[in-house]
Amino acid sequence: MLICEIISIGDELLIGQTVNTNAAWMGQKLSEIGIAVKKVTTIADEKNAIVAALDAAMDFADLILVTGGLGPTHDDITKNIVCEYFATELIFHREIYENLKKRFEARGYKFPESNAGQAWLPKDAEILPNKVGSAQGMFFQKNGRSCIVMPGVPAEMRYIMTNSVLPVFSVKNKGEVILHHTWRTTGIAESVLFERLGDIEAIEKFGKLAFLPKFTGVDIRLSVFANSAAEAKTNVEKAEKIILRRAGNLIFSTGDTPIEQALASKLIKHDKTVAVAESCTGGLLGKKLTDVPGSSAYFLGGLITYSNEQKIKALGIPPELIEKYGAVSDEVATRMAGSVRKICGSDFGLSITGIAGPDGGTSDKPVGLVFIALACAEKTIVKKNVFGRERELNRERSAHAAIRLLFETLRDAK
Amino acid sequence: MLICEIISIGDELLIGQTVNTNAAWMGQKLSEIGIAVKKVTTIADEKNAIVAALDAAMDFADLILVTGGLGPTHDDITKNIVCEYFATELIFHREIYENLKKRFEARGYKFPESNAGQAWLPKDAEILPNKVGSAQGMFFQKNGRSCIVMPGVPAEMRYIMTNSVLPVFSVKNKGEVILHHTWRTTGIAESVLFERLGDIEAIEKFGKLAFLPKFTGVDIRLSVFANSAAEAKTNVEKAEKIILRRAGNLIFSTGDTPIEQALASKLIKHDKTVAVAESCTGGLLGKKLTDVPGSSAYFLGGLITYSNEQKIKALGIPPELIEKYGAVSDEVATRMAGSVRKICGSDFGLSITGIAGPDGGTSDKPVGLVFIALACAEKTIVKKNVFGRERELNRERSAHAAIRLLFETLRDAK
Repeated sequence: MLICEIISIGDELLIGQTVNTNAAWMGQKLSEIGIAVKKVTTIADEKNAIVAALDAAMDFADLILVTGGLGPTHDDITKNIVCEYFATELIFHREIYENLKKRFEARGYKFPESNAGQAWLPKDAEILPNKVGSAQGMFFQKNGRSCIVMPGVPAEMRYIMTNSVLPVFSVKNKGEVILHHTWRTTGIAESVLFERLGDIEAIEKFGKLAFLPKFTGVDIRLSVFANSAAEAKTNVEKAEKIILRRAGNLIFSTGDTPIEQALASKLIKHDKTVAVAESCTGGLLGKKLTDVPGSSAYFLGGLITYSNEQKIKALGIPPELIEKYGAVSDEVATRMAGSVRKICGSDFGLSITGIAGPDGGTSDKPVGLVFIALACAEKTIVKKNVFGRERELNRERSAHAAIRLLFETLRDAK
Repeated sequence: MLICEIISIGDELLIGQTVNTNAAWMGQKLSEIGIAVKKVTTIADEKNAIVAALDAAMDFADLILVTGGLGPTHDDITKNIVCEYFATELIFHREIYENLKKRFEARGYKFPESNAGQAWLPKDAEILPNKVGSAQGMFFQKNGRSCIVMPGVPAEMRYIMTNSVLPVFSVKNKGEVILHHTWRTTGIAESVLFERLGDIEAIEKFGKLAFLPKFTGVDIRLSVFANSAAEAKTNVEKAEKIILRRAGNLIFSTGDTPIEQALASKLIKHDKTVAVAESCTGGLLGKKLTDVPGSSAYFLGGLITYSNEQKIKALGIPPELIEKYGAVSDEVATRMAGSVRKICGSDFGLSITGIAGPDGGTSDKPVGLVFIALACAEKTIVKKNVFGRERELNRERSAHAAIRLLFETLRDAK
């Protein structure tokens, strides 16, 4: 089996100015073609660090994927260091130069001389074209190891991976298979789920089992190593039988399908529509519902009523109700859901009103208090939640809880 | 200066099921107290990998922060391996056991026996309390190195870092300072910005300069290493003078302040309010505007009009207009912005209508075509954008472009 190491270069990653989403994306894509990423090493834009990381990786891995530091500015040092490392000189590629020039001129810019350096590329490396940016990829081979160097801009790295790297290595890696299969749950603690699954050995006969807790729920992942895709699939199916028997009612989807997508399928299946009325989430619930391509089949729209005045004007909430119970209350959430359902003419109305924080909390109604209501023709359900102190997390959890409420209602309705 | 390495343990990170946001958060917090994270190593939940990573880190760093693999399930192996590595036995902590039990019972669960193991902790390590989860932190010391092991659940890691790690090491690291200062630009290519800044050496007398391109714009970062906070601050100020003189009009904020926050300050300063009408972004623009704490000072609310019917009913767009020009058009964007401004009684109305994809494009109106309009009392500005093929990115870019349009309008109005 091919062992892969990713080397991510960039001070911005180390000081946390940028999150390393590149490594995650690459890990996922490589995993899909049966290549195991066994290490990700993130280092600074410094010569010593880059050389030490290359040395260690050439010992450890068959395939080394390097990203970052290929830009046109003075702080981009990766190209010169890897060329020195693999002992190759740079040669000038006129065609690449002309293309870069054209790209800039097409956007109405004079071609900056700093970009011209990007047409100088290593003689002893295969050049991997980058049509979405100015830094080309480079493919070095030495002592049976493959080392591929790409820009760190996500869209450019993805372009080179998709067009030049994954096609080549999916063929090289034929016959060996890793299959990761995930079942997703929501609303149950990790250890409780673990006990529900009971005798884990029976499941682990078919692969390695892992539990991944997130605020949206716990994922169960099975990793199967097999000689063929068919064998891997059979193992997953055998494990799934046991898992579904023991905890099937807790699982809302598989793979990386989010609950929004699972909800979308349920809405489409039942031919139902939904509209939203949002206060503290300011549009996040609508955003999540429309993350799903084709969401116009069930999502009509909604109202963002951030101020009390908007709640009164746009949703027709009686001012007395807000006066009496407060905007963050069971009563107002109920009216918001019912109102938006009527205004938009949808089957369901889903509302959120809460105190996201950091300010606005009282001892009675602390930061993190959120009411979520779901209205349909027959009734309205309201849920009171007390989340935490962090604004962003409170908003995320609120939107998730609203989606979960509608999903569970549809699921239980059969 | 203290050198730090982060070791992130977890198969889910390597196969890209989870993005390593922990390392980014830790890097940022450590950087703020002058500790340089020089390496992040991400490895599998495997004994050999963990031992090899610990060996390498004990050679390389003064402070080693390990996260992941402390949960209650069978795939959590980190605790036993580090205890073996640091040659310490486990002892039972009755108080922790009782607390865990209470936490579960308070949530109405029977205490799962799998959690009881989490009360067994190393004898020769300081225990760092975790009040937001069940896995405690562990602080080992050996050969002058500090090694701290924490759970991988972000909120739990952050709790232990904030309460037990950062306070201790900010004192230990007194007298040495790293200061990262960032200036943020939008709407200009990296190499063009580089040329605008001209003679970089004049700026680099004060620190190391880096350019960080993102789809929202290019950040310029200066990293200053100094003996005191005052010296570092002076260096930043000297560099800033040059940068502002050369590219001041391109900079919208500093630090990690997003453009939403810069816009919020402008709106508050000018005492103006805004409301939104969103189609393809489904609420994302409202969400971004309300990401900022205190956004109720300027954000009134808005309408998510995802369907044509909602555009007609809720915004009063004449059906003939949609018929004639299409919902994705200069004309409809203009009416949406004007309408929502009137309906909500705000100073500005901001609208987005476009084709996010993956479907719905035609040769005339391809996926990625987005109209953004800004209405105020005097006039309406419309911008036509042609973004790319990716739904998520198209939606992000649309919301960003709308925010940028309002920001630039307010900035240029003085």
